Amino acid sequence: MKTDIQIAQEAKMLPVKDVAASIGIMEDDLEFYGKYKAKLSEDLWDKVKDREDGKLVLVTAINPTPAGEGKTTTTVGLGQAMAKLNKKALIALREPSLGPCFGIKGGAAGGGYAQVVPMEDLNLHFTGDFHAITSANNLLSALLDNHIQQGNSLRIDPRQVVWKRCLDMNDRALRNIVVGLGNKMDGMVREDHFVITVASEIMAILCLADDLADLKQRLGKIIVAYNFEGDPVTAGDLQATGAMTALLKDALKPNIIQTLEHTPALIHGGPFANIAHGCNSVRATKMALKISDITITEAGFGADLGAEKFLDIKCRKAGLKPDAVVLVATVRALKYNGGAAKGNLGEENLQALEKGIVNLEKHIENIQKYDVPVVVTLNSFVTDTAAEHEFVRRFCEERGCEFALSEVWEKGGEGGIKLAEKVLETLEKKESHFHPLYKDELSLKEKIETIAKEIYGARGVVYEPAAEKQLTKIEQMGLGSFPVCMAKNQYSLSDDAGKLGRPENFDIHIREVYASAGAGFVVALTGAIMTMPGLPKIPAANHIDVTEDGKITGLF
Amino acid sequence: MKTDIQIAQEAKMLPVKDVAASIGIMEDDLEFYGKYKAKLSEDLWDKVKDREDGKLVLVTAINPTPAGEGKTTTTVGLGQAMAKLNKKALIALREPSLGPCFGIKGGAAGGGYAQVVPMEDLNLHFTGDFHAITSANNLLSALLDNHIQQGNSLRIDPRQVVWKRCLDMNDRALRNIVVGLGNKMDGMVREDHFVITVASEIMAILCLADDLADLKQRLGKIIVAYNFEGDPVTAGDLQATGAMTALLKDALKPNIIQTLEHTPALIHGGPFANIAHGCNSVRATKMALKISDITITEAGFGADLGAEKFLDIKCRKAGLKPDAVVLVATVRALKYNGGAAKGNLGEENLQALEKGIVNLEKHIENIQKYDVPVVVTLNSFVTDTAAEHEFVRRFCEERGCEFALSEVWEKGGEGGIKLAEKVLETLEKKESHFHPLYKDELSLKEKIETIAKEIYGARGVVYEPAAEKQLTKIEQMGLGSFPVCMAKNQYSLSDDAGKLGRPENFDIHIREVYASAGAGFVVALTGAIMTMPGLPKIPAANHIDVTEDGKITGLF
Repeated sequence: MKTDIQIAQEAKMLPVKDVAASIGIMEDDLEFYGKYKAKLSEDLWDKVKDREDGKLVLVTAINPTPAGEGKTTTTVGLGQAMAKLNKKALIALREPSLGPCFGIKGGAAGGGYAQVVPMEDLNLHFTGDFHAITSANNLLSALLDNHIQQGNSLRIDPRQVVWKRCLDMNDRALRNIVVGLGNKMDGMVREDHFVITVASEIMAILCLADDLADLKQRLGKIIVAYNFEGDPVTAGDLQATGAMTALLKDALKPNIIQTLEHTPALIHGGPFANIAHGCNSVRATKMALKISDITITEAGFGADLGAEKFLDIKCRKAGLKPDAVVLVATVRALKYNGGAAKGNLGEENLQALEKGIVNLEKHIENIQKYDVPVVVTLNSFVTDTAAEHEFVRRFCEERGCEFALSEVWEKGGEGGIKLAEKVLETLEKKESHFHPLYKDELSLKEKIETIAKEIYGARGVVYEPAAEKQLTKIEQMGLGSFPVCMAKNQYSLSDDAGKLGRPENFDIHIREVYASAGAGFVVALTGAIMTMPGLPKIPAANHIDVTEDGKITGLF
Repeated sequence: MKTDIQIAQEAKMLPVKDVAASIGIMEDDLEFYGKYKAKLSEDLWDKVKDREDGKLVLVTAINPTPAGEGKTTTTVGLGQAMAKLNKKALIALREPSLGPCFGIKGGAAGGGYAQVVPMEDLNLHFTGDFHAITSANNLLSALLDNHIQQGNSLRIDPRQVVWKRCLDMNDRALRNIVVGLGNKMDGMVREDHFVITVASEIMAILCLADDLADLKQRLGKIIVAYNFEGDPVTAGDLQATGAMTALLKDALKPNIIQTLEHTPALIHGGPFANIAHGCNSVRATKMALKISDITITEAGFGADLGAEKFLDIKCRKAGLKPDAVVLVATVRALKYNGGAAKGNLGEENLQALEKGIVNLEKHIENIQKYDVPVVVTLNSFVTDTAAEHEFVRRFCEERGCEFALSEVWEKGGEGGIKLAEKVLETLEKKESHFHPLYKDELSLKEKIETIAKEIYGARGVVYEPAAEKQLTKIEQMGLGSFPVCMAKNQYSLSDDAGKLGRPENFDIHIREVYASAGAGFVVALTGAIMTMPGLPKIPAANHIDVTEDGKITGLF
């Protein structure tokens, strides 16, 4: 069996200018990065902005398991299938982070015959967007520490610096550090932290900004520290905004590449959904809505994280209205949720399936709370049995969901036609009455509790004393109307990664809360979630190599 | 008067494919990054490698002063002038670092009417080469700390980790840090350091590697730490080599852009000359020698740093033979060296000039030690007087150097014709008998002392006890045949930045010595030199901005 990278490398790509032309984007509106990658010019938006929006479809999933779900694979395959049905569809995905590439999860270009290419470029530096974010983030840190060093006229309290440095790397040793050691010329000693770039507020800002002016304004609002009086100090106060904007100018432009079947794909921005808001950029999504009839986008990890934030943060902020949600599951993952051992997922096990399907059930119920039609799809595996498929189908249909099998991993777009037809039927026949889960007017605690109870199924919320104080402070600062971006482990609906299925009688523990004033949301860290991942005992990096003629191997 | 960025932004650039075509590079051998930047494909080298080499000219300078010398400006202008004389010349420069852009020095694209463009792109992310180096450097750090965390089977001594993290940023607070704080899952506590990316050994390796296979081999040899037995642990031991190579695969390809007069420029690699080896990549230089008749390259800061390392490290390692050296000075800088105050450099002052010209004298003598013909050029300023120019001309000619005025800042290529003619005459009539300053067989101490006495004019060398031990260890490890890369402040021939002119009766102080086994040299840190710069009280970043239509301002 071929690996994903083998399939990707054997693909005959079309020049990206031809791919773009297929959706009406002319060469003048492209900025090329090699033959197969391009950015969309700033002018393109002006040309298309008055068009009517197409339909918006979100692809989300059950909670991820080691068995693999294939959310990106399904999104890509669905895009490919739409083209087979002669629909003008466009997929809008996130850019992968280097961290997981070298860690445990691997890249994020889809899989099998439903991938976007060039896969290696996408998974490594791509068009440099993440590097630009890393640079802007760390320029702000350098300017902040330099301000303290050079007289500290803003009276920044070194104990209350909240801005963290970042790297696009899984590097646990940088979670908690002390900087400024040495002598007087080497800075002021203080505790500091690195987060992974995808968790930087600048990533969120880039993904939520409308245009360059909005980006700049948001950057200026970033709270970097509090002064000795307890008042916030912003990036604007540090005169950092212009230089940061200069670094991000090109990163703000959406990227276009192609699927294995030469259909276009917009790829832009990439916050993780466990430690950030988990959606691709508003600009790419809005662009896709203008230049295609059906935009298919995805949000990270399970629907409790990615979909909730897509609906409550991205759609709320950007005024987007999703027309349907595709919920991806696999028989294997459902059985794993039902207690089947990782080694036995290839055997028919209706008992485990029945036990584990409650995870899917909860996500169906959750999406239905937003009044958006749901299509469940099973990303099929060769080991699945007809009885297992049938069981899931019945389960979904009993809950008012559409259902379709997907075989895009094995068959590409052809394998997604049934799903595409079901999505088209849903778009035609079922109306979306989308509304966010909670209103802006609720208090931050009410928002947190709404998400915890309604989406996670928690009994209640327990706040650490520090978090209580932070919440009070944020509301006093007038930021209480922000939505909440929950940081939670992706494996469980609860904040305990070990609780699979549909856990009950648990509390959500809020450890820390901070305002992302530029992004426009409040982040609440739950349980033991980390904003800087670590590497596993045997990192994926150990197996990556390059042949003498420049072919990358071992990337997955 | 227009600023450099205004001149650059007003320039009508040609598509880079036309610029490349002018030197015989076809579109198939280009990988575009937008319309005006491209990388040269790996195939191009195979097509041209059997051609005869053209002539090689190095541009270097006196010690830099706040008055500005214009080494890059002269290099660019000389390239433009050669085109005016219908010569097939190609300039090969370094890529700028973000650090100085946001700090004090500004960018590095030349100045006035002798610039390479697009200036903003070049000074910001360009084609991402530095970001790739930063990523590869920090991946190695993450793998190293992860190895210690996950059982440390290589028995790495956390007190003897010599590999440092890096960022392309001036950030003094990261010079000395403690990582791995927190709990057991957050890594092993140890002291660590960040250097600026241009000082990373990976930058040196990228600039010295012949091809992908050589790059990979060199990366594997990097010494990252010593184990508890005192033996070196390498990047190869950590199985980091393949993944690092994957990250650097594209960065290894030289970049091509254009001058304001549409002549081609190869821009590749960018180690600083004070804290690293200061030259652009061997690959770009070798490529330029094959595809043009005259390659004009530069090395950083004054000739004591850049030229010494170009001649003793780059030429030695790559088997290059320079045919002439252009030594850039300004009347203003010479007067500054002679004690004239920064505010009075616009007034005729033959006394200060006479006193300060000893700096130029020393650099002339130094280059002559390598038996390469020297052409001195004065980068002229409107405030210079005829008497001052005449004084310098006579001074140079008495010492067997050619001399020419350069007015490229004001007049572009036209202003460099006299210099170009003098260089062409030198290439024709004077033969280079280039040889490095010292032989491989000398001990490391003898090499250091040769550079200190012969080039810097020092009385002797004083070693700190730690440096003595490090030298002994490096020779015991069998690396004593490496050349030495001196890290020294750029302002003075001595290791004390305050000693201008031609200091005498001083010692060079060696603080620390380490082996860059992948790059193939030993680094000796002198005086108070830092491998991570700091930001000034008012960083240049404060003045950089972007207009709503995406135009960058304040970058210089």
